[in-house]
Amino acid sequence: MAVQKVTLFTQSPLKLALGGELEQIDIAYQTYGKLNAEKSNAVLICHALTGDAEPYFEDKSQSGWWQSFMGDGLALDTSRYFFICSNVLGGCKGTTGPSSLNPKTGAPYGSQFPHIVVQDLVKVQKALLDFLQIDRLYAVIGGSFGGMQATQWAIDYPDAVENVINLCSSLYFSAEAIGFNHVMRQAVINDPNFNNGDYYDGEPPLKGLSIARMLGMLTYRTDLQLAKAFGRATKAEGQFWGDYFQVESYLSYQGKKFLDRFDANTYLHLLRALDLYDPALGYENLKSALSRIKARYTLVGVTNDQLFKIIDVRKSKELLEQHSVNLNYHEFPSDYGHDAFLVDYDFFEPRIRSGLEYDSK
Amino acid sequence: MAVQKVTLFTQSPLKLALGGELEQIDIAYQTYGKLNAEKSNAVLICHALTGDAEPYFEDKSQSGWWQSFMGDGLALDTSRYFFICSNVLGGCKGTTGPSSLNPKTGAPYGSQFPHIVVQDLVKVQKALLDFLQIDRLYAVIGGSFGGMQATQWAIDYPDAVENVINLCSSLYFSAEAIGFNHVMRQAVINDPNFNNGDYYDGEPPLKGLSIARMLGMLTYRTDLQLAKAFGRATKAEGQFWGDYFQVESYLSYQGKKFLDRFDANTYLHLLRALDLYDPALGYENLKSALSRIKARYTLVGVTNDQLFKIIDVRKSKELLEQHSVNLNYHEFPSDYGHDAFLVDYDFFEPRIRSGLEYDSK
Repeated sequence: MAVQKVTLFTQSPLKLALGGELEQIDIAYQTYGKLNAEKSNAVLICHALTGDAEPYFEDKSQSGWWQSFMGDGLALDTSRYFFICSNVLGGCKGTTGPSSLNPKTGAPYGSQFPHIVVQDLVKVQKALLDFLQIDRLYAVIGGSFGGMQATQWAIDYPDAVENVINLCSSLYFSAEAIGFNHVMRQAVINDPNFNNGDYYDGEPPLKGLSIARMLGMLTYRTDLQLAKAFGRATKAEGQFWGDYFQVESYLSYQGKKFLDRFDANTYLHLLRALDLYDPALGYENLKSALSRIKARYTLVGVTNDQLFKIIDVRKSKELLEQHSVNLNYHEFPSDYGHDAFLVDYDFFEPRIRSGLEYDSK
Repeated sequence: MAVQKVTLFTQSPLKLALGGELEQIDIAYQTYGKLNAEKSNAVLICHALTGDAEPYFEDKSQSGWWQSFMGDGLALDTSRYFFICSNVLGGCKGTTGPSSLNPKTGAPYGSQFPHIVVQDLVKVQKALLDFLQIDRLYAVIGGSFGGMQATQWAIDYPDAVENVINLCSSLYFSAEAIGFNHVMRQAVINDPNFNNGDYYDGEPPLKGLSIARMLGMLTYRTDLQLAKAFGRATKAEGQFWGDYFQVESYLSYQGKKFLDRFDANTYLHLLRALDLYDPALGYENLKSALSRIKARYTLVGVTNDQLFKIIDVRKSKELLEQHSVNLNYHEFPSDYGHDAFLVDYDFFEPRIRSGLEYDSK
């Protein structure tokens, strides 16, 4: 089934957490499996930075970003749960974002797209669930940026979420991770084609975006994985300054491939939403925010994650426990580092199953 | 004393390891302390990627890159040793590099500067020592890229080196580290002012170089140090897309400050020399290269170095031991990560002393 679309916030606009508003928000979403009569098996999947509304394709000629985790009998069991996944607000895969046409002007938002935070993304997801007439989610699951969305669901809608499963993420983005995002943003902003974000009439800032993506890839993987995959192997036809080593060729390929599927403004906005994520936004303090959580919360960290360092995942564990969240914590090493939640099914399967099967038997 | 200068390779050119040659090579160097009558107390200091010929200033109104490690009674004891330090070949601090005038054309080398490797840098240092009439070095010491030069000294001139002290470095640069260098190089090369390296008549690729430097800084430090120094603190007058967080402001400042003192072509050439470093170049294999080492070899790794990961330092330790190098190995954690060899004197002092004082009493 092709990705589904709905336009919401047509009667009254979405008021954004940092000010401003958006109206007529298109939402691209996909569903998998069947909602049961009691509507008790709905699971919301929140995608990470560069994901989209389609983690899975039943037609196996295509492959979604969580293809190996989903299906009949797998950890994300399509024969048991009704999964909903939507492209996030600010995205470039069908949901309203900076490349969308501003209904007030008929031109792409570009530099006029407002500042967004995770809380806004979650409000749009909630509106989609309301549209689908689902009041209560059996679970919200996400990795990385998606884990932040899952956490915020349990804070903002405590009665609507039974289980949170948060993979390779933490309650706050670290100073170092903000630093990597800063370098990536500056690569895009300094591209001569960026034009303050209004580049939709011309050439987009492709070189800057590909540099940003290459750096992102290095933070998503580990030295161990790159050593095993490429080591110091060189290319037969490599250029001295270009792709001389195979690891360079791999990164360049990833950087270029990304340009076909992603928008530079979306990248900037979502990176900033990662930096700014604060579960306490709108509440008196972190205690008052975390104390709202009623869901059972599964947190899974990868000890050699180079983006969400395990020290920060452990701090999040402590904060959740301090505020009496019913926590189910796991950590383990994976050569894939941060990307483990996308590729290391064998490690994640039992943790996701235990996070989902708590009281559903 | 101002930096000293000499022009060598005036009679016959330096034949470069990857082909081509360079003639009339200017070398900027500095010396500290007194050479004793037996000429048995000479210590060569090899600088890292962005260092220069002046690690130390006796006039304390200035500060060298190893200021806190050197001086009367310190680990690098200027009352005891005669230190020599020179700017590397390819550099931009007085030694011939891409920004120097090509004697054949009278214009800066720019894109015509030949490919250089660590072995070439070491040959130029050897020529300087010959000029200074020093046949034998009591020690060669260096961190990071400087550690590679120190290693190569002991391989190429085994009878001229009594001690090697190699800090925060390994025998090979890892796939991940090559990846970071690739991203930095592409940031420079994609800058519209780069002009294939021939930018000396116009505006240099400053934005690209500052992006590269910011990324470099992130690999030189650690998440722990950045969390302690900046955490998630924001700037009072920050811009949303600019330096909103203090860690961003710090990186931007480092990126800009670097532009005053460094040349983009030098950065590219020395990054590539890091990638390409192979102690076995010119020998049958690694065994035949490492087996040449007669020096006592001190290797010091930092367990949370994010550039030269400790797993690679340990591999180097094993390779050196396998080939019967007389090894003195230390490792310890430092929040400063890779930069520890420049700033964490308390940790390095005893290891450098033990590396130097082996048989000098």
